[in-house]
Amino acid sequence: MSKINLIEKFNLFSDKWSPKIIAQLNDYHFKLVRIQGDFTWHKHDNTDEVFIILDGQMRMDYEDEQIILNTGEMIVVPKGKNHKPFAEKEAKLLLIEPAGTLNTGDKKDSFTKEEIEWI
Amino acid sequence: MSKINLIEKFNLFSDKWSPKIIAQLNDYHFKLVRIQGDFTWHKHDNTDEVFIILDGQMRMDYEDEQIILNTGEMIVVPKGKNHKPFAEKEAKLLLIEPAGTLNTGDKKDSFTKEEIEWI
Repeated sequence: MSKINLIEKFNLFSDKWSPKIIAQLNDYHFKLVRIQGDFTWHKHDNTDEVFIILDGQMRMDYEDEQIILNTGEMIVVPKGKNHKPFAEKEAKLLLIEPAGTLNTGDKKDSFTKEEIEWI
Repeated sequence: MSKINLIEKFNLFSDKWSPKIIAQLNDYHFKLVRIQGDFTWHKHDNTDEVFIILDGQMRMDYEDEQIILNTGEMIVVPKGKNHKPFAEKEAKLLLIEPAGTLNTGDKKDSFTKEEIEWI
């Protein structure tokens, strides 16, 4: 029940593409992640996924569109929709999705994080 | 699927204690709200509730504790826990909770908003 300071939590880690859980709302997790470069094309067949850009700029690639997102902007990636996050420089994001959602969705590769740490 | 700019959305309204829906994640709503002064003591018997402070300062009163929250901080109010938000000056918040969650929970009074507008 204590409060969570997002900047303090970001200072606890520096690795990229490795989400950390900071809070739980019913059966949903709030995760912080630092991203840079290209991620894996993937989709989540059973859930939407929210990205909130806390610092920096990212691009969400869909198969038919690219959307630039800056600090203070958010996007809901619909379930079943192929997407690929990208950031030229490091960006800091807040992700919100059901607990147990795999970061690479329907794909398994070197980006896949089976175990997500609470910080 | 288009992006949502939080500041632009806040510029669409000025009323206090009147949440506006800006996004849906599965069966959860993301709501922006401007708050100032004292709200109603209430609880949500069936859901946790997330408050993220986007601008300003607020205080979350519990029966046994008061928690000051500043910009960039968040709190999860557990289901069933009596709480009362307060802000001396206007603060801007992002709320995340299941669609249909009543703002005053188990209470009905002049703060109750039965209908929540999408913006």
